[in-house]
Amino acid sequence: MSRSYRLVIGCPDRVGIVAKVSNFLATYNGSITEANHHSDTDSNWFFMRHEICADSLPFDLEGLKTAFAPIANEFNMQWQITDSEAPKKVILMASKQAHCLVDLLHRWHSGDLHCEIPCVISNHNDLRSIVEWHGIPFFHVPVDKDNKAKSFARVMELITEHEADTIVLARYMQILPPEVCKQYAGKIINIHHSFLPSFIGAKPYHQAHQRGVKLIGATCHYVTEELDAGPIIEQDIVRISHRDTVADMVRLGKDCEKTALAHGLRYHLEDRVIIHDNKTVVFV
Amino acid sequence: MSRSYRLVIGCPDRVGIVAKVSNFLATYNGSITEANHHSDTDSNWFFMRHEICADSLPFDLEGLKTAFAPIANEFNMQWQITDSEAPKKVILMASKQAHCLVDLLHRWHSGDLHCEIPCVISNHNDLRSIVEWHGIPFFHVPVDKDNKAKSFARVMELITEHEADTIVLARYMQILPPEVCKQYAGKIINIHHSFLPSFIGAKPYHQAHQRGVKLIGATCHYVTEELDAGPIIEQDIVRISHRDTVADMVRLGKDCEKTALAHGLRYHLEDRVIIHDNKTVVFV
Amino acid sequence: MSRSYRLVIGCPDRVGIVAKVSNFLATYNGSITEANHHSDTDSNWFFMRHEICADSLPFDLEGLKTAFAPIANEFNMQWQITDSEAPKKVILMASKQAHCLVDLLHRWHSGDLHCEIPCVISNHNDLRSIVEWHGIPFFHVPVDKDNKAKSFARVMELITEHEADTIVLARYMQILPPEVCKQYAGKIINIHHSFLPSFIGAKPYHQAHQRGVKLIGATCHYVTEELDAGPIIEQDIVRISHRDTVADMVRLGKDCEKTALAHGLRYHLEDRVIIHDNKTVVFV
Amino acid sequence: MSRSYRLVIGCPDRVGIVAKVSNFLATYNGSITEANHHSDTDSNWFFMRHEICADSLPFDLEGLKTAFAPIANEFNMQWQITDSEAPKKVILMASKQAHCLVDLLHRWHSGDLHCEIPCVISNHNDLRSIVEWHGIPFFHVPVDKDNKAKSFARVMELITEHEADTIVLARYMQILPPEVCKQYAGKIINIHHSFLPSFIGAKPYHQAHQRGVKLIGATCHYVTEELDAGPIIEQDIVRISHRDTVADMVRLGKDCEKTALAHGLRYHLEDRVIIHDNKTVVFV
Repeated sequence: MSRSYRLVIGCPDRVGIVAKVSNFLATYNGSITEANHHSDTDSNWFFMRHEICADSLPFDLEGLKTAFAPIANEFNMQWQITDSEAPKKVILMASKQAHCLVDLLHRWHSGDLHCEIPCVISNHNDLRSIVEWHGIPFFHVPVDKDNKAKSFARVMELITEHEADTIVLARYMQILPPEVCKQYAGKIINIHHSFLPSFIGAKPYHQAHQRGVKLIGATCHYVTEELDAGPIIEQDIVRISHRDTVADMVRLGKDCEKTALAHGLRYHLEDRVIIHDNKTVVFV
Repeated sequence: MSRSYRLVIGCPDRVGIVAKVSNFLATYNGSITEANHHSDTDSNWFFMRHEICADSLPFDLEGLKTAFAPIANEFNMQWQITDSEAPKKVILMASKQAHCLVDLLHRWHSGDLHCEIPCVISNHNDLRSIVEWHGIPFFHVPVDKDNKAKSFARVMELITEHEADTIVLARYMQILPPEVCKQYAGKIINIHHSFLPSFIGAKPYHQAHQRGVKLIGATCHYVTEELDAGPIIEQDIVRISHRDTVADMVRLGKDCEKTALAHGLRYHLEDRVIIHDNKTVVFV
Repeated sequence: MSRSYRLVIGCPDRVGIVAKVSNFLATYNGSITEANHHSDTDSNWFFMRHEICADSLPFDLEGLKTAFAPIANEFNMQWQITDSEAPKKVILMASKQAHCLVDLLHRWHSGDLHCEIPCVISNHNDLRSIVEWHGIPFFHVPVDKDNKAKSFARVMELITEHEADTIVLARYMQILPPEVCKQYAGKIINIHHSFLPSFIGAKPYHQAHQRGVKLIGATCHYVTEELDAGPIIEQDIVRISHRDTVADMVRLGKDCEKTALAHGLRYHLEDRVIIHDNKTVVFV
Repeated sequence: MSRSYRLVIGCPDRVGIVAKVSNFLATYNGSITEANHHSDTDSNWFFMRHEICADSLPFDLEGLKTAFAPIANEFNMQWQITDSEAPKKVILMASKQAHCLVDLLHRWHSGDLHCEIPCVISNHNDLRSIVEWHGIPFFHVPVDKDNKAKSFARVMELITEHEADTIVLARYMQILPPEVCKQYAGKIINIHHSFLPSFIGAKPYHQAHQRGVKLIGATCHYVTEELDAGPIIEQDIVRISHRDTVADMVRLGKDCEKTALAHGLRYHLEDRVIIHDNKTVVFV
């Protein structure tokens, strides 16, 4: 895959945005390798993502930003331009369960997930060895009822120190403090082991078993201050039957959790997700 | 498909049930064409369904019941034996939306749904013509805020008169009175246009759009007194995206609703569903 | 849904196409409601579809075509502009099996399929009544081994007479003559009851049963002179098990066939499908 | 999960098999935790699997076999009884691609795959480190065009030495010699990266891209002497679009390959698969 710049835009919808942006790109001979638009008629908001071959433009990233800024101002855009060769820094947080963490580590290791993983943080020590096998530093930050403030201060310290721009809760099982959710809004990705909004909170597979559903699912979403209520990026489901115990559901659900999280994170890393009004536009 | 008897059993689990039942069948040279068992370890309850080639047994239906009754008593069974050539009498209830009703009528017409449909009842007249094309009587029973008691008395009269043993709410859009739900417990099948327990009640597609889910679904369930809370028979889902408006979701959801309802009803008609503790065992 | 013009383009890829087209639209104040692009790097071909609010432009359809033609010439475009309020004329062809035909008729009747259906042609008379109930003329054109030329001449006559621009083989079960396939290239849509390229030709469910597959499928594709080898528009699958006989597979496959055909046809009617090199780009 | 014996039977179908077997179990007070039957009417063959709580029977495994043998003889059964606490010995064979191997290793490591893995054999050295991290011996047996006989002799030696009863080709990319296929019939499980019988042989994703399919898949099957033609255990698919390059298909297909192989292997390990006439009965 050759180097590309990703121009991602959200702004009030009106005539001429596409023309202005594509003119700008054509003026500088920019070769567009992928383009997606969406107009949300409810909120009259316009969303756009361009992937442009970096070599085709006479700019470096900063130069491109500078050249584009006047257009962004004219249309009141929320916008960013990212460089496909400047991968995001993703801190993974996990607890005792390995499946989501190992799945992400493997995808990263095999080159299918383009990011840096500066470290893994866990409230337990169980997964240290597999993390370190991947050459990634592992930090054990225990969280007890009585030391939460101190623990999350340490977590924040690690996040800051490693300059993370994305945090993935790979079955972390702890609720982050509201101020962390706020500070990293749109940057913390969680995998919840139910088909939200069904079965919010603890033990969703037990809730699903109790209700007698015939499909179970998993939801990858951005974390907000309200539990399991943030913008949904991706969902997946698997069929179950009366034969399946809670233990079977836990096992079968793991595959859902892994794929929903891996897909959702991939979309995020490629700047394909735009949050608006607690919902997401996902350009795939 | 040759004629078969269906022996369906639920009882407290203990050693020897299968042996007793299969001995009974073997004693009379009964040829089993399908057999399913399930032990629910939570409730210590045992479920079993046999399909037996009718011609292989020296009994008619009543004779078989008489011969089997002592075994049923010995094991405290809830049981029934049905005859595949005595199809259930199914009253379909609809409102203005045609898709579920037409789908069921077509499956019945083409021989894929083995039942009798003595009549269709609707609170609107819109679907009269397509129902009558199928040679099925159509009864228009309007339901207004102020005449509900009278309307549902008329509905009950029609149900009784036509000796219905199953009632299907094919997007009927009215809530049946509690006493009807109670009287026909386990015999009224509804299709709800969401992936329950998400989005109970009115306008589930609007609720789904509001929440920004990435999959929508439909749920086929038995009706109980509590709204959208009865035992689930079947669920189906379809993937959506940010591009889909509520109108798109309504359209896409129709296919889910049709298949979930058609499958659920088929299982019911073939005596494959056993209700226990507000959940279902579905032997497919 | 308000009236829109659909501008669909395929041309050799180069810098500036999007800019030129979106400038053109912006110049005339055209409001884009949906836009899709695709660059195929293998063939260096560019695909684009715009949906533009008709009222926002100062043109009628012919005026728009005239104004756009110079741009089309400059970029060697294969292009068309269609009007969402000039629905395509679709002739449905069927045989004895009702499910696909009835499904399409119902979707059309309920307003979910935007087209005109000037007539239905069948080599059997079985489905006359349900077609005529929909107010659509039904033509019975028998096809015997010995009268094929004459039969298909009559079919062609009906197609011409009714000015059909799309022909749907809704389980028609006859192979069209090569000259018809050629003349209506990209306009004849077939539903094949297998997951192509598996099980080409006759009795695919028997072939699938023989091979012991665990999933069966259906394929909606454009008809070409080579049997079951034309560009694929849409595919769908359903899970089966060792319990399913060929008869079960036929029944279960019907739902796949219906949805694959309905979706594929919808994409075609909305000018979302572009054929290139025996493959399709489908903008959904 | 408590210890269980698994009694798996295939025999000519006739009245009285179930009665005989369940009587036998009831006589010894055996508690059946799961039972499955299937009658194949085409071949008049009967299939049955019982899972019996080991503690409820007065036998050890050999005792149970001895006690059951007369019944097996009477009905000409092909049969086996296995002990859930005597896990199969599974040799994994891989090449350079890690995804299937790592997925199986992780499932094994986390306790979701009940087997022993005495060693991994690969024709490349790339995956040694991750295998050894799991504490499993890794054997590098290079295979060149000119040394095949010698290489496979070494492979056979390792298989024999480690007393493997199952061999899994986790994207091994080499074709086993016919005599190995014959000797280990029903014991070698392969994952093929297409939806068989589509795209047999090399580079199936390239073939799929060339054909323009809209779904790609993976097939888990037993290896026979004929390439990619053995009994199918499990298949899975994923939706693709015109946007997906061969590289995208390779990436997306990996998830299909992993789940199809993991599910198929699990069924095999739990003795849920019975081969008959180049097809499988899978009791799940």
